[in-house]
Amino acid sequence: MARSVGSAESPGDRDALNTGQVYIICDSAVSGVEPKAIMSGTQRVVRWYPPAYDIRVEDAPIPQIIDDDDAIVKVILAGLCGSDLHIYRGHEDVDRDLICGHEIIGEVVALGSSFCPDSIGRPELYSTLKVGDKVVSPFTVSCGECHFCRIGFTCRCKHSCLLGIPALPGGQAQYIRIPKAGGTLFSLNSHHVSSSRPVPDLSTLSDSSLLLLADILPTGAFAAIQALQHPKVAPILIGAKYPFGGFVAHRVTARDQTSVGLQAEDRILTIGIVGLGPVGICATVSLLDMLSGLAESQGLVYQIIAIDPLESRRSKMEAVYDTIHSGGKAWTGRFAVASIDDGKKLSAEWTDGAGCNAVLEVVGNNNALTLSYEIVRPFGIISSVGVHQEPPLPFNGRGVYDKNVSFDFGRCPVRAMFPIAVDILLKRQDVFGSVGEKASLIDKIVPLNEAPDAYEDFDKGRCGKILFDPWR
Amino acid sequence: MARSVGSAESPGDRDALNTGQVYIICDSAVSGVEPKAIMSGTQRVVRWYPPAYDIRVEDAPIPQIIDDDDAIVKVILAGLCGSDLHIYRGHEDVDRDLICGHEIIGEVVALGSSFCPDSIGRPELYSTLKVGDKVVSPFTVSCGECHFCRIGFTCRCKHSCLLGIPALPGGQAQYIRIPKAGGTLFSLNSHHVSSSRPVPDLSTLSDSSLLLLADILPTGAFAAIQALQHPKVAPILIGAKYPFGGFVAHRVTARDQTSVGLQAEDRILTIGIVGLGPVGICATVSLLDMLSGLAESQGLVYQIIAIDPLESRRSKMEAVYDTIHSGGKAWTGRFAVASIDDGKKLSAEWTDGAGCNAVLEVVGNNNALTLSYEIVRPFGIISSVGVHQEPPLPFNGRGVYDKNVSFDFGRCPVRAMFPIAVDILLKRQDVFGSVGEKASLIDKIVPLNEAPDAYEDFDKGRCGKILFDPWR
Repeated sequence: MARSVGSAESPGDRDALNTGQVYIICDSAVSGVEPKAIMSGTQRVVRWYPPAYDIRVEDAPIPQIIDDDDAIVKVILAGLCGSDLHIYRGHEDVDRDLICGHEIIGEVVALGSSFCPDSIGRPELYSTLKVGDKVVSPFTVSCGECHFCRIGFTCRCKHSCLLGIPALPGGQAQYIRIPKAGGTLFSLNSHHVSSSRPVPDLSTLSDSSLLLLADILPTGAFAAIQALQHPKVAPILIGAKYPFGGFVAHRVTARDQTSVGLQAEDRILTIGIVGLGPVGICATVSLLDMLSGLAESQGLVYQIIAIDPLESRRSKMEAVYDTIHSGGKAWTGRFAVASIDDGKKLSAEWTDGAGCNAVLEVVGNNNALTLSYEIVRPFGIISSVGVHQEPPLPFNGRGVYDKNVSFDFGRCPVRAMFPIAVDILLKRQDVFGSVGEKASLIDKIVPLNEAPDAYEDFDKGRCGKILFDPWR
Repeated sequence: MARSVGSAESPGDRDALNTGQVYIICDSAVSGVEPKAIMSGTQRVVRWYPPAYDIRVEDAPIPQIIDDDDAIVKVILAGLCGSDLHIYRGHEDVDRDLICGHEIIGEVVALGSSFCPDSIGRPELYSTLKVGDKVVSPFTVSCGECHFCRIGFTCRCKHSCLLGIPALPGGQAQYIRIPKAGGTLFSLNSHHVSSSRPVPDLSTLSDSSLLLLADILPTGAFAAIQALQHPKVAPILIGAKYPFGGFVAHRVTARDQTSVGLQAEDRILTIGIVGLGPVGICATVSLLDMLSGLAESQGLVYQIIAIDPLESRRSKMEAVYDTIHSGGKAWTGRFAVASIDDGKKLSAEWTDGAGCNAVLEVVGNNNALTLSYEIVRPFGIISSVGVHQEPPLPFNGRGVYDKNVSFDFGRCPVRAMFPIAVDILLKRQDVFGSVGEKASLIDKIVPLNEAPDAYEDFDKGRCGKILFDPWR
């Protein structure tokens, strides 16, 4: 059953009108016809052509609702992400052209028939999302209903699909179709927030900062949380010997006779970050935010070593840290931004030769993994969120056995990380709220027709994160 | 300062006398001479010669105290372990002969001068351990005083040294020198157990079952605990969505609008075990013990698939399970022992195609790692305690990213696992308390002079675990 709406007079339609589009969503309960969206006209899109480095801005048909769970979203801003460069450079073995982009914030302009008030037992948005609502989409589709979604591993949803591939046109466009939209989208409208919890006021946040929720801020927070939640880090956080923390509260009767207790120096947590691109900065800010909380509540002492070979990225990281540090309560931990060589030196000097307790790998190649491995201590954790390619992992069995290394690999379950990422976004507007300033994560917002130059500049490291405004 | 002792009349010396040895430990506070042990005579030892497969039983000098922290232990029983076969087969690149063995239970016959009542601020045993005490040694030395020991990562102690290498003669002998003995040894005498906790009565336990504490039972328990403590398993155990469990209690204000809650089927924990040698059986029994506790306290439903290609090992595992299962309260989980092919089938059939939540890899080669990877589900954990060799890990970057796999590699911190392992040993005497029966982990106890045959039989899979009694 279709949920309603769709006359040109409803509030949510005004942007469509402004841009000359016409669409109608039939209400099958009223009209008796099959629910569908009928749209006419074309839109502007950024399209990539194989084999590589070929970006064109073209006209394309406006996407239509083709499944009852679909939403059509009018794109307010679309991001250019480091992983777009994998496609751009031809590293993904894609042999067909595609509409690029997987980071969007936008406004719902059409909904499939699954969206109706009596959509019981399904994700909440199927009964509450309205045309006109502002939404963020994670970069992958997640139904919200399968085992992986229910448990929070949303990036491995049974219906998972990356935005911006040949089968699912991306968001560097004026409109995008979002499948399984009631599970995939995150509504920024406060009427969707439960009254039983404090309502975060997202209205104060700029669109450009909200766009960071689509991928890079949750991914950075995920990198940090994988490290901090690991049971091999627990003894440092809670001040109890391994293996007595964690979810198995084994009742132990025998006594540990033969080691002395934890000392102050054992509770210094040293974390390395390898890679200071936009995701690496998000990971560092998330980590600082979480650690400052733990320092306050549990007396934790922490040290962070943020590493990148590029001077420009290190400068950005330093500016971000200075902004945060001067913006309010001073943070108590030790913090350094370092080149690769300096990072290696510091991870030894600051830890009496032991190395980092955990390393966040935010690059996605074997050099970064090798560096992470080199600076992590025995029983340390490598939390790897970089998007890796075909080469074998650069480790052998004896090495990882002899070092007692733990690894967490893989894609961020962005949709499940949203609540945590929203909190960080709200607290850290000093960093995330600006565009084009020294400490801004986002360098500039450009029209779609600058996409070819933007891709080239971003690929060559001549700029930081760029957003597209498809209506300029 | 030497702690005393050492006349042939003291109680702890009687065994030495029985075997014709004479030793004296000088008390420097009394005698004014440097503390040292003076022993005469020879002992019988099992010695390996390079390059491979050459085991001889020979005479060798009785070890002496050469450092103040040393203890000399008269070996009651010594184990033959799967990892002894790495040396036996010449896989460890050792070019000198050595006295074999790293699993011992024994009795203290001499102590260095560090052992004295006023040994303040050091591990408890330096002030409480006495000649005559019964002890178990883990298979690596751990000082109990460095950062890694204090935090519980005892196998990566700064003074770590494997027993049974050229530099540190092993335990398949009548006597062994244990360095850093106040940190390394575990005393089985109840006077060393704190009065503030219930005293486990270890006197009921046979020497052969206590020997399992030296390596294989803690290693099995470690494999299980690494999986159960992992934050990616936490949602199943605690019934809360990832990532909200764990040590970072991030206060979240935004609401998860777009997925439905966990259902009963999401709380079924499926764990595979790859490798059913003695350590694999210990891992399985430990896992069953921990999971039955969680099933009782938290309503967890669990499924275990124990996999080995060898029929003889599968039969042993089945006999162990039957013994436990019939021995008391029935366990509620689903349990299967399977060949490799059947294991793959079951891990799909029992999980609607998703695979195991965690896999315990207890073999130590790439075939086992590959099988573990194949049957683990996305966001699953591979807890690898197998002793791996030089080949590169059989995984590539894209694979582990696309599967969101977590790995915990490495050696068990046996010394830190003792309290948990002792509890399991006490509860599971139905399995661990017998020798030579259908469900026994230990097949037989033989004299040292049968070592050449024992190594060969064990290497060829013609027998299960063998212990040596060096006094028969």
